Parts: sequence; structure tokens; C-alpha cells
Amino acid sequence: MTTGRKGRFITVEGGDGAGKSTVIARMYEELRRRGMDVLLTREPGGIDIAEKIREIILNPAHTQMDKRTEALLYAAARRQHLVEKVLPALEAGKLVLCDRFIDSSLAYQGHARGLGIEEVFVINQFAVEGCMPELTLYFDVSPEVGLERINATRGREVNRLDLEGLRFHELVQEGYQLAIARDPERFIIIDAEQNPDQVYQAAMEALLARL
Amino acid sequence: MTTGRKGRFITVEGGDGAGKSTVIARMYEELRRRGMDVLLTREPGGIDIAEKIREIILNPAHTQMDKRTEALLYAAARRQHLVEKVLPALEAGKLVLCDRFIDSSLAYQGHARGLGIEEVFVINQFAVEGCMPELTLYFDVSPEVGLERINATRGREVNRLDLEGLRFHELVQEGYQLAIARDPERFIIIDAEQNPDQVYQAAMEALLARL
Repeated sequence: MTTGRKGRFITVEGGDGAGKSTVIARMYEELRRRGMDVLLTREPGGIDIAEKIREIILNPAHTQMDKRTEALLYAAARRQHLVEKVLPALEAGKLVLCDRFIDSSLAYQGHARGLGIEEVFVINQFAVEGCMPELTLYFDVSPEVGLERINATRGREVNRLDLEGLRFHELVQEGYQLAIARDPERFIIIDAEQNPDQVYQAAMEALLARL
Repeated sequence: MTTGRKGRFITVEGGDGAGKSTVIARMYEELRRRGMDVLLTREPGGIDIAEKIREIILNPAHTQMDKRTEALLYAAARRQHLVEKVLPALEAGKLVLCDRFIDSSLAYQGHARGLGIEEVFVINQFAVEGCMPELTLYFDVSPEVGLERINATRGREVNRLDLEGLRFHELVQEGYQLAIARDPERFIIIDAEQNPDQVYQAAMEALLARL
């Protein structure tokens, strides 16, 4: 992709319950306080076409949605969000912090849903056209801790019905490990089982060391 | 794709103004008259998810639509139409006649829009998962004749503003030639500059010879 990329493109990844969103919001505030020009975003990010694509994915009436259709729709929404929001910000010299990007598709669609990481990578390469993040912070929690945190948010304990959920969390984490293994230099792994202050400190230190 | 594919999957391709739709409707009637169990379809084909995807592609308000987003959306609609409509018909032993399929994306998005035929092929391979037509009838008209026919339908002559249109028609035809060159055994080329009766006869003969 021919873009005068003057900014820095950073993504944050992790399974559900890893605590990404809280920490990334705090990082955003601190970076701005330090005078940096930062865009915090996540797909579909208010981009009209990407929002409409996401509506099709999430519509509960779409019980017939095929897994490959879904993966192509995620890639389409990613493309449009990239072109309309991320690239203009990078061209304007901003630091772009994106909450989930290509690695989420590799872990969720590619591995946990069983489509294959390399196959899902190929359609996403078509979508991002070489515009990969220079750094990805991976928030690492065990599937058990991730699931406990989600349930705590919902105000209940883990029950029998969560066992299938636990298997899915395990697959997502495996998928992330495989995604990291195919491009290890791009990732910094953050121990996200620490308390939120420690996670925030570790993530900020990793980011500032790279900047 | 693991499908008990007992039917026959035939696609019909060609640039705008090639006269495909009229001929294919007549072929459908004749095949049914002969007692064959035929499904005539074209994407999105009444499949809810595919129709909603097509609405996003065609919405005139979406002037920001990126070409790669569009190609991914076409592939997504193709996948869903294939899974919900084409594959069940093939499994039921039907003859499926599909008006446009993967080669349209190679010619239009891949070549005429400049994304690259191989790149567009890759995302479509993800979508069709090996379920390729066994035979593709290519309706061949020169770009000039195609454009004249379209304008005749609209009740006007070719004018200066059509010159850009002509270049696009040329690119679409080039794209089809490239698509045919990469998989020549799948195609039968029908001279679609003949009169409609002759085109119909040639197409029927080609199809029946294969069946």
C-alpha cells in the first residue's frame, strides 16, 4: 500500500477477559497527557461501511451465517476501517492504538473456529495490503482466569455450561500462541494476570521502550 | 468442501451486453421441458445474508467504498449463496445454472478494477473452498458490440461519455481472457455476436455435449 506512513501503528490483542480495553483507555489518556497525538480505535470504529458490515455479522437473526462468510466480512470491515480511519491518522503522523486487528481473526476465526490460521491470514493480507502494526501488545491470561473475569463482570460463578466456553477460550489462546509464533518479533507479551495497575505499567513500559 | 455433490454445476459468464441473461432463461426452460431438475440462480439469489451484503455494495451513499472491501464483500456474498443455495441443490442432484460466479470477480475486480487476478482468485478460493463449476460458458462479444447493445437497451447512441465505458469493457474482456487462460479446460467460448437464436443454439449444444 502506498501510504506516506509517518505515524506509528500499534495493536493490542488478547482473549476475552484479558482486561485490554480498560488498560488501553488508560494508556491513551497517559500518552495524550504527555502531548502525543494519539488515535484510539477499534473496528468498526464509527466508519459507516464497516459498521454496516458488522451489523450483518452480529445480527442474531443470521443463524445461517457460514464461518467463511463471517471471516470474509471481518476482513472487509477491517479493510474499510483501515482505509478510512487508520491510514489517514498514520499519514497525519499520529500514534494509532488499535484494540484488536488481524491477530484476532487468526486466533478466533483461524484457530478457534477451525478455518485454519494460514487461510485466514491470506484473506486478511488482501485486506491490509502490507499495512501491519509495528508492535502488538499481547495481553496474556490463562483461559480459566479470562473466563472467571468475564463471569465476575456478569456477577456469577463459573458453572457447568461454561465448560464449552472454557474450551473455546483455550482454543483462542492456542490460536494467539500460533499467531505469535509465525511473527514473534512483532509481539510483546504482557502478563495480564497481574493486578490492573501492574498490567498497565507493564504495557506502558513496553510501548514507550518501542517508541 | 465435503459435499455429496451429485448434481452438475455450470456457470455462465460474459461482459455486460453479452446477452447472457436472455439466453440462460431460455436454456433453463428447455432443460426443464426435457425433464431435468434445474436450479437457475445468480448471486445474491434471495439468500438473506447475501442480499444484505449486496445492499452494502450497491448503496449509492457508499462513495467511500474501497475496491478491496468491495471484492471481499462479493466473495462473502458468493460464499453464503453457495452454502445456502448452490450446495444443497447439488447435493439434491440438480443441475445448477449460475449466472456469473468466480470469473466475474477475476475479470471485474481482479483485472478491470486493477486489484490483480491472482489476488482476487485467492480470496475467492477461500470463499468457494474448491467448489468450482465443472463447465463455464463464456459469452464472447467485442467491447464495442457489448456497449452498443447496452445503449440500445437504454434507447440511445454511443456518445463521448461512453469512451471511458468502452475502456472499461475492454478491460473486462481482457480480464476474462486471462481468467480463461489460467483454466482453459473449464471453459467453452460461445460467439455471442451472432443473433440470439444462434447464441442460444450454440450454448445449448455446448452444454448438452458436456452433460
